[in-house]
Amino acid sequence: MFKKQKLKIIPLGGLDEIGKNLTVFEYGDDIMVVDCGLAFPDDEMLGVDLVIPDITYLVKNMAKVRGIVITHGHEDHIGALPYVLRELDCPVYGTRFTLGLVAGKLKEHGLASKAKLKPVSHGDTIRLGEFKVEFIRSNHSIPDVSCLAIFTPVGTVFHTGDFKIDPTPIDGSMIDLARIGEIGKQGVLVLMSDSTNAERPGYTMSESNVSIAFEEIFRANSHQRIIVATFASNVHRVQQIINCAHTYGRKVAVSGRSMLNIISIAIELGYMKVPKGLMIDIDETTKYPPEKLVIITTGSQGETMSALTRMAFSDHKKISLGAGDTVLISATPIPGNEKSVFRVINELFKLGCEVIYESLAEIHVSGHACKEELKVIMGLVKPKYFVPAHGEYRHLMRHASIAGRMGVNKKNVFIMSNGQVLEVNEDGAKINGSVPAGKVLVDGLGVGDVGNIVLRDRKHLAEDGIILVVVAISSDSREITSGPDVISRGFVYMRESEDLIEEIKSCTKRTLEDCRQKNMKDWNTLKANVKNDLSEFLYEKTKRKPMILPVIMEV
Amino acid sequence: MFKKQKLKIIPLGGLDEIGKNLTVFEYGDDIMVVDCGLAFPDDEMLGVDLVIPDITYLVKNMAKVRGIVITHGHEDHIGALPYVLRELDCPVYGTRFTLGLVAGKLKEHGLASKAKLKPVSHGDTIRLGEFKVEFIRSNHSIPDVSCLAIFTPVGTVFHTGDFKIDPTPIDGSMIDLARIGEIGKQGVLVLMSDSTNAERPGYTMSESNVSIAFEEIFRANSHQRIIVATFASNVHRVQQIINCAHTYGRKVAVSGRSMLNIISIAIELGYMKVPKGLMIDIDETTKYPPEKLVIITTGSQGETMSALTRMAFSDHKKISLGAGDTVLISATPIPGNEKSVFRVINELFKLGCEVIYESLAEIHVSGHACKEELKVIMGLVKPKYFVPAHGEYRHLMRHASIAGRMGVNKKNVFIMSNGQVLEVNEDGAKINGSVPAGKVLVDGLGVGDVGNIVLRDRKHLAEDGIILVVVAISSDSREITSGPDVISRGFVYMRESEDLIEEIKSCTKRTLEDCRQKNMKDWNTLKANVKNDLSEFLYEKTKRKPMILPVIMEV
Repeated sequence: MFKKQKLKIIPLGGLDEIGKNLTVFEYGDDIMVVDCGLAFPDDEMLGVDLVIPDITYLVKNMAKVRGIVITHGHEDHIGALPYVLRELDCPVYGTRFTLGLVAGKLKEHGLASKAKLKPVSHGDTIRLGEFKVEFIRSNHSIPDVSCLAIFTPVGTVFHTGDFKIDPTPIDGSMIDLARIGEIGKQGVLVLMSDSTNAERPGYTMSESNVSIAFEEIFRANSHQRIIVATFASNVHRVQQIINCAHTYGRKVAVSGRSMLNIISIAIELGYMKVPKGLMIDIDETTKYPPEKLVIITTGSQGETMSALTRMAFSDHKKISLGAGDTVLISATPIPGNEKSVFRVINELFKLGCEVIYESLAEIHVSGHACKEELKVIMGLVKPKYFVPAHGEYRHLMRHASIAGRMGVNKKNVFIMSNGQVLEVNEDGAKINGSVPAGKVLVDGLGVGDVGNIVLRDRKHLAEDGIILVVVAISSDSREITSGPDVISRGFVYMRESEDLIEEIKSCTKRTLEDCRQKNMKDWNTLKANVKNDLSEFLYEKTKRKPMILPVIMEV
Repeated sequence: MFKKQKLKIIPLGGLDEIGKNLTVFEYGDDIMVVDCGLAFPDDEMLGVDLVIPDITYLVKNMAKVRGIVITHGHEDHIGALPYVLRELDCPVYGTRFTLGLVAGKLKEHGLASKAKLKPVSHGDTIRLGEFKVEFIRSNHSIPDVSCLAIFTPVGTVFHTGDFKIDPTPIDGSMIDLARIGEIGKQGVLVLMSDSTNAERPGYTMSESNVSIAFEEIFRANSHQRIIVATFASNVHRVQQIINCAHTYGRKVAVSGRSMLNIISIAIELGYMKVPKGLMIDIDETTKYPPEKLVIITTGSQGETMSALTRMAFSDHKKISLGAGDTVLISATPIPGNEKSVFRVINELFKLGCEVIYESLAEIHVSGHACKEELKVIMGLVKPKYFVPAHGEYRHLMRHASIAGRMGVNKKNVFIMSNGQVLEVNEDGAKINGSVPAGKVLVDGLGVGDVGNIVLRDRKHLAEDGIILVVVAISSDSREITSGPDVISRGFVYMRESEDLIEEIKSCTKRTLEDCRQKNMKDWNTLKANVKNDLSEFLYEKTKRKPMILPVIMEV
């Protein structure tokens, strides 16, 4: 009998970071992929629009790829599909709502006709080569979320995706703990589990808790117009706002492209129930008194171009806010967005609005499991090996210690990096080498053409600007025939710095004259000298280091 | 009898923002200033080092300025002094520790000899023209903090500065509530009070609470080396670490320039007590086993160049961290710093360190009063008029509603902006006009030479880089004699974009040829055409908008 092969688990994104989740499972000649997400750029990635995983390994093994399985429809799980599907021609599996969002996204990228989207329901099992994948009902902050049981020839991998345990979710469908328990009893080789909230003690509150806070606010603000900003994809949050509006006799208008988009998908696919006549167009809001209106909007993260930000800065075409408006920010700032969110809140206050935000009321709950929930899952799944997934290194570390306390053997816990290959079968598990992995930066239409050198230059330009010195030199006498002219951008305001500009010219002249007398003729030497002398002069003078580009022409 | 003049209160910084606190009090021919702080630049202020208040109004009224009174030694209260004292020649009053820090700062700027620093003690009253100012003991997160009672001909202004009510501070000196109560009983016209924590319910914990957490951590980590990062200016926090180290038989070494600097000032002036032989030089740490060492360091905000960040990225000259080290981050991230702090924490975990940070233990308390403390002060001071100070607009709003609940008449509450003039006397108070106020940006040695145009250019350069097109044209035939050459920085990596570069050249040639045929000779028209055509071409091709600088030379 042949010895069984090893299962390879290769995360290409989502480990040691929040975002761009993508994990490769490989057995023999078969590869399946779980999730295909994007990440948002760090502050260092100037001008970059978004970040996707490096899929060199998948492209190289294209013939083996049987399909991509999506756990849910958030950007960090589906956002890279339009880029990845250009390279890989394979089917994409997910629940109906998930694929509804995927379809919309592919359409925007002109890929709608090309994609093979295969809807599944919870309880379904699909076959992808040697893999069988069961979709299990789960809870999160978007509808129709799945955990995955991946049955392989060497054993079962349980992948939680993003999840929480919500006993009272808005759609009444609690995570299928019974099925997870059954799978656990049959024996699970590897558990991969969501680490996002592994630092937080206790349990995450149920989504339905938010209703209680909403109701209170609607009662207390019965004479105000109410504006609620939340994540567009949080359909159940939007459903609660709609329910509350209905209860209190208010009409609902929606602002923000992604909010309109997702609500229409949710209604079309039956994931949202809206009483007839409740929704009105944003243009119709003028027909109703403030106390009969709720406006649901994007912008809960203070995004510059979002509807709420535009309202706050009096730059929204349809809605003007002021005294008489109560604005609810039903979301917590994602780390890095705090300042933008607070900026919007400050502006809203200045307009005279009442603003209710996280530090003041319970109008938001997380979509991720806290420590006690993570323990429940681990107790049900009872894995032999554990890979904390979805999180920065600190989250993975905290999740690993939870596993320790739940009785998982410390040497069976693997804190992985993107690109590492975990090889596992009945006999054991170990990290064995790595494949290419990393960040591919998307800037406009360019995918991967912005790299370290470009970013380093952008950073340099951002901090101190640029100075051009343009000069023409006679090819015979080597004397200056025209210039030097100085152009500066982002360094000093030229009109107010005439003396400095003159000094830059003199400095350049001195250098070139010096070169001439020393009979230096090499173009690059000339440029390097001008650059060095100017750089030194300017640092001495201003303690700044603008980028210096000498343009020397021979005439 | 003459009618009394009005007292003018003019905040030039610190309202609708956190930082650069500076308030002007003017009565007749006398001006006094409270605090003189800096702010740190927003994300939008690319390349800017720090921000100071616009003091045009003070410079214009220089002859009236009797002195600057400092409440405490934090950067947002003293950091602008080196810039302001170059313009204004007036004495600076503050407690000994406060002036110790000011002196250090002025020395760095070569202004030590020029400054007139006048130390005061709590309980002292100084006279500044028609003003009398009493310094009252207070609590915060730095020693020797003062509240101010400013006695004016029209009544008393009570200015809290930054404060909290700490019944068990490390130096045993609780805020002088008795004296504040006395002043309140005598009648206070205006209260200006710290709004930083006006959103937070309850009380801020005492600084001494931190000791309990420290002791626990020292006990639980008895075999580890312990590294503690905190704010350098939090002398009492450092004192607690020192006490704890002493109790548990560890030596203490210090890393980080500002930490060394402030500790030496604190010891010299008697604000810190260090058992003999406890402190060792960082070079001596190799002589002791890990469990006998504590290292106190800067970098609790994840600052790029700080000692802790360098340790985390294995870039510190003296200290290498790894398994066997427990790192405590004894601080909360200031909004905007979250990502940097988490980046450092992740790196520390990767090195194998145990890391204890805010979400896991009570190793930090705030220095600012929460709602209940704000009420206590308001209840003692019982002001006629109230100006919430020190805070973003949202904080000022929340503080205003606290005042409402404490019985201050709503129309007597003034939510001010920087530059506004509050005129007040026994008969009434109103905002009456404004004076110049704003942000002066400091970049290197330049004070105020970076303005909106420079920042706009930096942002443009940061996002999409720059393209230079250099071309020489014959003055006779108007034909191209040399070039076009293309230089790009921060746009695409040139070596990998040869085709695009060629297309840029062709596009430029087409434009210039077109201009030649149309007999356009004006230099600016030529440049504008090249710029527009290229810009359009590149946006079409890449969906990016680099800055385009055409350099056209006539030969």
